[in-house]
Amino acid sequence: MNYQKDKVSDLKIAYIGGGSKGWAWGLMSDLAAEASLSGTVALYDIDFDAAKTNEIIGNTLKNREDVKGEWCYICVETLSEALVNADFVVISILPGTFEEMESDVHTPEIYGIYQSVGDTVGPGGLMRALRTIPMYVEIAEAIKTYCPKAWVINYTNPMTLCVKTLYHVFPEIKAVGCCHEVFGTQNLLSAALKDVEGIEGVSREDIKVNVLGINHFTWIDRATWQGVDLFPIYKKFVEKYYARGFILDESQHWMNNMFACAHSVKFDLFQRYGLIAAAGDRHLAEFCPGAWYLKNPETVYQWMFGLTSVSWRKEDLKKREERSERLKTGIEVFHIHETGEEGVRMMKALLGLGDLITNVNLPNSGQMLGVPKGSVVETNAIFQKDNVIPLLAGELPVQVNALVNRHIYNQQSILKAVMDKDRNIAFAAFINDPLVTCDLAAAVDLFDRMTANTKEYLCEWMTSK
Amino acid sequence: MNYQKDKVSDLKIAYIGGGSKGWAWGLMSDLAAEASLSGTVALYDIDFDAAKTNEIIGNTLKNREDVKGEWCYICVETLSEALVNADFVVISILPGTFEEMESDVHTPEIYGIYQSVGDTVGPGGLMRALRTIPMYVEIAEAIKTYCPKAWVINYTNPMTLCVKTLYHVFPEIKAVGCCHEVFGTQNLLSAALKDVEGIEGVSREDIKVNVLGINHFTWIDRATWQGVDLFPIYKKFVEKYYARGFILDESQHWMNNMFACAHSVKFDLFQRYGLIAAAGDRHLAEFCPGAWYLKNPETVYQWMFGLTSVSWRKEDLKKREERSERLKTGIEVFHIHETGEEGVRMMKALLGLGDLITNVNLPNSGQMLGVPKGSVVETNAIFQKDNVIPLLAGELPVQVNALVNRHIYNQQSILKAVMDKDRNIAFAAFINDPLVTCDLAAAVDLFDRMTANTKEYLCEWMTSK
Amino acid sequence: MNYQKDKVSDLKIAYIGGGSKGWAWGLMSDLAAEASLSGTVALYDIDFDAAKTNEIIGNTLKNREDVKGEWCYICVETLSEALVNADFVVISILPGTFEEMESDVHTPEIYGIYQSVGDTVGPGGLMRALRTIPMYVEIAEAIKTYCPKAWVINYTNPMTLCVKTLYHVFPEIKAVGCCHEVFGTQNLLSAALKDVEGIEGVSREDIKVNVLGINHFTWIDRATWQGVDLFPIYKKFVEKYYARGFILDESQHWMNNMFACAHSVKFDLFQRYGLIAAAGDRHLAEFCPGAWYLKNPETVYQWMFGLTSVSWRKEDLKKREERSERLKTGIEVFHIHETGEEGVRMMKALLGLGDLITNVNLPNSGQMLGVPKGSVVETNAIFQKDNVIPLLAGELPVQVNALVNRHIYNQQSILKAVMDKDRNIAFAAFINDPLVTCDLAAAVDLFDRMTANTKEYLCEWMTSK
Amino acid sequence: MNYQKDKVSDLKIAYIGGGSKGWAWGLMSDLAAEASLSGTVALYDIDFDAAKTNEIIGNTLKNREDVKGEWCYICVETLSEALVNADFVVISILPGTFEEMESDVHTPEIYGIYQSVGDTVGPGGLMRALRTIPMYVEIAEAIKTYCPKAWVINYTNPMTLCVKTLYHVFPEIKAVGCCHEVFGTQNLLSAALKDVEGIEGVSREDIKVNVLGINHFTWIDRATWQGVDLFPIYKKFVEKYYARGFILDESQHWMNNMFACAHSVKFDLFQRYGLIAAAGDRHLAEFCPGAWYLKNPETVYQWMFGLTSVSWRKEDLKKREERSERLKTGIEVFHIHETGEEGVRMMKALLGLGDLITNVNLPNSGQMLGVPKGSVVETNAIFQKDNVIPLLAGELPVQVNALVNRHIYNQQSILKAVMDKDRNIAFAAFINDPLVTCDLAAAVDLFDRMTANTKEYLCEWMTSK
Repeated sequence: MNYQKDKVSDLKIAYIGGGSKGWAWGLMSDLAAEASLSGTVALYDIDFDAAKTNEIIGNTLKNREDVKGEWCYICVETLSEALVNADFVVISILPGTFEEMESDVHTPEIYGIYQSVGDTVGPGGLMRALRTIPMYVEIAEAIKTYCPKAWVINYTNPMTLCVKTLYHVFPEIKAVGCCHEVFGTQNLLSAALKDVEGIEGVSREDIKVNVLGINHFTWIDRATWQGVDLFPIYKKFVEKYYARGFILDESQHWMNNMFACAHSVKFDLFQRYGLIAAAGDRHLAEFCPGAWYLKNPETVYQWMFGLTSVSWRKEDLKKREERSERLKTGIEVFHIHETGEEGVRMMKALLGLGDLITNVNLPNSGQMLGVPKGSVVETNAIFQKDNVIPLLAGELPVQVNALVNRHIYNQQSILKAVMDKDRNIAFAAFINDPLVTCDLAAAVDLFDRMTANTKEYLCEWMTSK
Repeated sequence: MNYQKDKVSDLKIAYIGGGSKGWAWGLMSDLAAEASLSGTVALYDIDFDAAKTNEIIGNTLKNREDVKGEWCYICVETLSEALVNADFVVISILPGTFEEMESDVHTPEIYGIYQSVGDTVGPGGLMRALRTIPMYVEIAEAIKTYCPKAWVINYTNPMTLCVKTLYHVFPEIKAVGCCHEVFGTQNLLSAALKDVEGIEGVSREDIKVNVLGINHFTWIDRATWQGVDLFPIYKKFVEKYYARGFILDESQHWMNNMFACAHSVKFDLFQRYGLIAAAGDRHLAEFCPGAWYLKNPETVYQWMFGLTSVSWRKEDLKKREERSERLKTGIEVFHIHETGEEGVRMMKALLGLGDLITNVNLPNSGQMLGVPKGSVVETNAIFQKDNVIPLLAGELPVQVNALVNRHIYNQQSILKAVMDKDRNIAFAAFINDPLVTCDLAAAVDLFDRMTANTKEYLCEWMTSK
Repeated sequence: MNYQKDKVSDLKIAYIGGGSKGWAWGLMSDLAAEASLSGTVALYDIDFDAAKTNEIIGNTLKNREDVKGEWCYICVETLSEALVNADFVVISILPGTFEEMESDVHTPEIYGIYQSVGDTVGPGGLMRALRTIPMYVEIAEAIKTYCPKAWVINYTNPMTLCVKTLYHVFPEIKAVGCCHEVFGTQNLLSAALKDVEGIEGVSREDIKVNVLGINHFTWIDRATWQGVDLFPIYKKFVEKYYARGFILDESQHWMNNMFACAHSVKFDLFQRYGLIAAAGDRHLAEFCPGAWYLKNPETVYQWMFGLTSVSWRKEDLKKREERSERLKTGIEVFHIHETGEEGVRMMKALLGLGDLITNVNLPNSGQMLGVPKGSVVETNAIFQKDNVIPLLAGELPVQVNALVNRHIYNQQSILKAVMDKDRNIAFAAFINDPLVTCDLAAAVDLFDRMTANTKEYLCEWMTSK
Repeated sequence: MNYQKDKVSDLKIAYIGGGSKGWAWGLMSDLAAEASLSGTVALYDIDFDAAKTNEIIGNTLKNREDVKGEWCYICVETLSEALVNADFVVISILPGTFEEMESDVHTPEIYGIYQSVGDTVGPGGLMRALRTIPMYVEIAEAIKTYCPKAWVINYTNPMTLCVKTLYHVFPEIKAVGCCHEVFGTQNLLSAALKDVEGIEGVSREDIKVNVLGINHFTWIDRATWQGVDLFPIYKKFVEKYYARGFILDESQHWMNNMFACAHSVKFDLFQRYGLIAAAGDRHLAEFCPGAWYLKNPETVYQWMFGLTSVSWRKEDLKKREERSERLKTGIEVFHIHETGEEGVRMMKALLGLGDLITNVNLPNSGQMLGVPKGSVVETNAIFQKDNVIPLLAGELPVQVNALVNRHIYNQQSILKAVMDKDRNIAFAAFINDPLVTCDLAAAVDLFDRMTANTKEYLCEWMTSK
């Protein structure tokens, strides 16, 4: 790494999951748009060909006139090659394939359990975690060996358990979990400001929020814009749209877009708890007892969000694979745009090129009261030269804390199950998940079935009873 | 109070709920059987006549040859009269009547929610708590005013919230919550010792256990008898009786006695979590998700315990009222026996007449790890002269802690709801209870209905929406 | 208070100690230089005439062309008049007079105890605290009554105990303690950057530091400028100047200026502990055992700082009184300049006019590990609209923490002594202060003498043995 | 190990420091007097001959009529031989020789620093700790390897750092630190009961005390005998004897016996802090600032205790060596008596042969508030079958906590210095010790000198500057 005034060159970024046809392209775009950084990105993926394709795509950006940051992409064959001398490590992997995810999301439906995403909590999130944690144990150990001083940015879900595993294995790791869900809520607040007060064009960065909770179940208990308290405004906004929902972008209507929502769950939680839940409704719903928002598809429809089917994801992947081919061969030109993700901004701040305050997932060392020390929580933090300092976020009201801590204890159990290789603990977490509403016999059956379906990516202690 | 060698005379005990036709007679019996204490018991009850009857019954014991402890019973008209100069305060009240309890227990059945007791947690426990807490606020304030140095022994349920309210209102109070459920588990361990090892006649006091958890959802993680670890023995015992249940006393078979059980829930929890749950199965079941042991009456039958109906309680009350009349008029002679309750033993220890180690409900000031400070927890403590010192009980395994903390947060919410007069918080606790498995609309309906049914004993903020 | 775009008018600032001939003029100057704020400053002082004079001086600024912020100054007769409707409260008082301070600083010299300032810790700091705390009890109660939502900025010493008292009496108070000592250390780091690396003109605001400790005994464990770690640079700087000291500003040489120093104490602490002590040497020395830097005047001379005599302060006061007269009568024109204090910047940020990160004194709610919760600590915090959020500062190395906690426990004792009216506790704190190196008999004698000397401003329980 | 009813045979005790001519004989005596235990004691000592002698002496007890417990003594050549299969490990070693101790105690006198014992805190205690900790690192690792389930009883000083090191190296160790100083204070309370109230013959076991603090600086905040609060009685006792001191046993007058005292320091601390300090005055004095009780020999004389000179210890050792020879050769018959130490009672309780409540040194896991978790503290605990459970001791008043925590932080520093091999941290602890009252230059000089004097037993990082 090499500092010049306001610039840093010769950086090395290790990208784990470097064959990704989504996050990796986003990073390429953001790096290309940023003039102050340059260096090498080492792409590592268990699918070597996918990484190789991204190497080619990434290197098409060289010498393009509209590219401000010069980066060299290199595909590597081993994790250690990727990590050696890395200044940053970006992790965005799919733990298993969409086949496993299909079981995660849809097998529980046979038992009346519906999940809108299935990658964070619920039976699907748990199974995914059981696959992911051993991979993260390996990654953490490799980082400890090959680049213990590197900053690690995680995008993989289940976010909380990924970050928790990294710190569990290597407590001195400099890792943060990075998620854009809160940004969407800031945009919603901006929309409320326009709708209620007629103030237009406020960017999400100017909406100051205090964030506290866990990833995808994050809460805002203070929000201001300049001198204005946004809570009374949001209250009016919720009252206005509670019954019919609010569509931020008509082109992204929840009836057509499985990732969209009408914020009805968010509004309902506000009415009930007085705080702004800061994630998409699909995520929020999964953290609540199953009978609330995910009882059955009709209930989901009434709350105006969608169940993201894995068949759609498979379709979508095919399209992205085709696009990958077009980008590789030059039939399609790589489009540079700001993704809205903050990975590159974080890198800049960590290199000393200006402070950044944003929400981030980190072990609780005091930033959040009312949850155990060491739990991975999402709060604001300030990024400075080689340092991330959490801001004191305070404490959730007890009735919300009750909901959040239920997941925190389950996440502790899941990590313990893997570290202790104890199937009983995994099952205990499974039946304590708010979405697992079936009886004990059905739960045993479902757990066995999901285990069998995804056994290729599970440890032996899980699959051999 | 007056000390002689090994004896204390001129004691004053205030009995709140002094018209009781159960606990009060038990105390009379235990006091009569104890030679080292004597003095006055002031009986206070909102049902003055009931207290008056107990005064008469209590005073029939005077001068009886088989009575070792001389006590004078006086019925008083006000709480303050009862408390002034009291050395001990015993509280055992019924918050409301069996009419309210009928709604607590049976109204939820309309919504598919079954409760085996309905006085601790679940929708019934919550409603009962909403009635009880304001009474305990009043009692705590009166104790603060009239006898701040007195030791207070609580028997009323919901135990945890009663004790929590006392300390919330008057933090310097010297109060303990006293419950016999753990004793039953010690007796079960004694039975296991006999059944597995052939060792007979071990008294429950000789079974040393480490107790941790909350009242009625208490756990044992170490149990020994002399030099012997009882866990391997209990494991064999559970394996032997898991399928068919174990009947400690055939005269108290669960099919005939609504208070009995075959310990199947306890055995199931042991298989799942490796710890000994230390309460009757009827209580334990209510702390778990509704689908586990209380899904419907058939499930309850399979787990071999009973749903205690309030109509039975009403019938039983009639019998006790008749007996009360007989005792009062001398038709029946009061029978002195050891009740097995520890109230009088506690008093002795607090007066300096020998140490006592037993389990007790107290605010957590460090005796239990993994639960918030200030939560009321049940652990062992040593009773000494004017002092109760908790023993460090350690921490539950995370998968059990998850179940326990869920209730701890709910209990915090319930107390906060009452102190803040906030119906929303009460409802938030209601829908977070593991037994409340219905959907949101049904939950609103049930909550309203239960509120209406018991409105006579609820605060205005609960009943006026 | 009235918001326009980027401006706030109709503010009310209550100034307690409004007759001040130093801090008050500074505030006038900073307010005059700030275009975005306007309103009224209510001046309250037990010396009404002094406040009246400042009213006249403040109002001379109206309509001056170089004044950007329009403020009306009003002298009031009671604390309540000052506080009613206040948006901000500024407190800068002298607890007692320089007569009392003379005893604080110089009486201990008779017993071989030398103090360089005598207003924070040491025997002088303790006596001053005993005078100040009752005043702050009164102020906190008045704020609670008259303007509970106002932001309170304290400048009075002993800072820690002033802030601690405010929060002790009124836990919901929105108060911060504000001190410029860290700024001086940032300036020293800027000087080091110039001296060692030849980089000139770096402003103190661009030197990012992590601050932790207690007021006047604050430490920096990370310091960067842009991408550069300043610790290796400071290390070289210390090695270069350890023996001869470093004079930042020759016009402020420690041999001529009792407030100046050559940073030798700071350098010595760095050599010993590896951290940058972030206050003037006169303050730092007083927190260490007496034999280290304040054994006797010769030792002080060797460490190249001065003992600030109270006779000098008295002389200086006379000059300021004369100047006050000149300003009042218009003989001297009030000079508007940036004082470098951050009070007005804090107000702007609290009004929503842009974030500010700076070091500030607040009760520890988790921002500092290794010291008790509730201790008043000095760390960085971010000021936002109606909110001050501490940044997690981490933990001091144990060997430094040992020195800091010694004072934290003493400060707890001092507050407790006043709240419990317990002279014994005050004396216990006295003999545990690192500067009180005399034997017990001498300590009793000194304590009595200092008490007698300042009895006019002490509570009765202190003066009547 | 082999259980019969009420008896355990085939025990193995490993005795580290098995050549001891004091503690080892005490253990032999207590084991001989105890009928319920029997087995083997493996004696290990770096002085093999000394251990061999004790083997011979121990085995003389076999077949003696007055011996109730049958033990076989075996001298072993390696630590591992001693530990393999051990049920208990007793550690009582002298770290270094009396030559090193001579420097510990007397070299500081050259600098005006007097120590009455010099083995716990002060410059001597620190140097001794620096020698001891590396030995305890080795012992802890050996226990982890050879007998991780054994119970470890430590008698070596500095007690706190010995126990802290054991847990630091092997957190799962089952170790307790055992000290008799509190027993002496119980005896003093018994004497007060006799002196003030005329009640004779109360045994120390019947005096119930709540103990809290650190070893040799332990405090009692509650003391009762049967129904009687002993604090008012002790208050009268202190007032009566404050000026002239109290001699418990005229044969052990402080003027003739360097280990005795007249309790004047204890009485003074009671007057000042209201708590009963529970250790000998020689120990208590060393924890306070040097100017209080150890300013110079005259001061010590006024407070009526002695400075235990190492020359006396050397003389005494000679006598014990001679006695050892006599015992070995049978010229003197080994006298069996109850030593008053609790090691054997602890073993019995840990084997399940009856509970024991006593004070003991353990890491703080919540038993003491107001001191950091993990600090080794001395409080009451209950010994049960394979378990030691601390009792919640509460918190010291802040003015006492200030004194105690000063040493706790220093102890943390000393352990850290050794684990990090950092001479700077060791020196930081040295100059923060309350007895080190000299200036910095003298402190450097003394530290160097003491290091040089004892360098044979110090690690290289300490001796090479």
